[in-house]
Amino acid sequence: MDVREALYTTRAMRRVRSDPIPADVQARILDAAIRAPSGGNTQGWRFLLVDDPAVKAQLGPLYRDALGRLWVTAYADPIERARAAPDSQDSAALLRVVSSAQHLADHFEQVPLFLIGFSRGDPTGGSIFPAIWSAQLAARAEGVGSALTSVLGIFHGAEAMQILGVPEGKGWVMACCVSFGYPTGRWGVAARRPAHEVAYRNHWGSPVGFEIAEPLWPETGA
Amino acid sequence: MDVREALYTTRAMRRVRSDPIPADVQARILDAAIRAPSGGNTQGWRFLLVDDPAVKAQLGPLYRDALGRLWVTAYADPIERARAAPDSQDSAALLRVVSSAQHLADHFEQVPLFLIGFSRGDPTGGSIFPAIWSAQLAARAEGVGSALTSVLGIFHGAEAMQILGVPEGKGWVMACCVSFGYPTGRWGVAARRPAHEVAYRNHWGSPVGFEIAEPLWPETGA
Repeated sequence: MDVREALYTTRAMRRVRSDPIPADVQARILDAAIRAPSGGNTQGWRFLLVDDPAVKAQLGPLYRDALGRLWVTAYADPIERARAAPDSQDSAALLRVVSSAQHLADHFEQVPLFLIGFSRGDPTGGSIFPAIWSAQLAARAEGVGSALTSVLGIFHGAEAMQILGVPEGKGWVMACCVSFGYPTGRWGVAARRPAHEVAYRNHWGSPVGFEIAEPLWPETGA
Repeated sequence: MDVREALYTTRAMRRVRSDPIPADVQARILDAAIRAPSGGNTQGWRFLLVDDPAVKAQLGPLYRDALGRLWVTAYADPIERARAAPDSQDSAALLRVVSSAQHLADHFEQVPLFLIGFSRGDPTGGSIFPAIWSAQLAARAEGVGSALTSVLGIFHGAEAMQILGVPEGKGWVMACCVSFGYPTGRWGVAARRPAHEVAYRNHWGSPVGFEIAEPLWPETGA
């Protein structure tokens, strides 16, 4: 698969089949992940694959509770506004994300594979998320969908790390929990605010110098 | 370019030529970046391209000072150990990174383009670094090298944000400063600790279930 197709079409796939991910596919996903950069190439990362139903059964309730907390905190106002004006495009988009994220939580135990990422000595996240995103892009090339989530670590990191046996006092932080599975939906280019609305040149607020009305991939040809 | 080639060979390219990056290449890099996921698809990001010599002249001294602070803090002990035992493989690797990072700092003003990433409402970095890494992978496909750095924001974020005109009190955080340029060196698969040494299955410390002696790309054939 072309790198640009992967970059454009690896949208969050939260509705997946329970079919397992073959071991050789998992190996290619992880081997791609560890090629990513990290500060000083220190590779202060660990990748914990979870596919044991007994472990998923312990994490699932925590995950659902964490998502529930997100809905009543950071997302409470946006959801209320969206429900008050459900006909706007932004409202519809937000409510679709909420519904899809809730679906993932409700079916946590049926997701065939999770990749839980840990890092240490990484105050910005810049030494773990390139590797995580590489794993998701490598999965895309294998036809495996994924969704990057952070709520488990944010709201129930300590409990989840105890369940998973993460040693205490060593500086490990749960960066994310990524779901993997063969998607039930279709790959596609997700809606985004265009680059020239979120990019500047040399000074905050100055035009970046180009406008991109339509995604530059796929090229439609002259 | 195949996605796996991009994932395996986008190593940090800190030695670059001063030739400018054409505008259409910059547009493709940014358009790929904004396709990345962010929490709830909120896209709480801004991408500031810097190519004005006057702005680089203001940031360069801050960048060099920030790197100097890194060497005498988090990297002081590792560098001392490496210099005491320069013949070990790990020492040589670390000293190469240090030398290469210092080269980038010393030639900051000659780097043709920087992408400074900002995010807000993103406690883990998981809503900005996938986009940043996508930009670097898209650049790789164009033959443009890059290096992801975080020292400017960590040590001199406030001053740099003032120079760049970032509004205060809006929650924006400088996540990273990525250099871009046509590399003087060669692309290649960087050395990494193999996946099975940094990955577990279902419980911290449990074998992941496979061993990967050599990078799985390029495939050497049967």
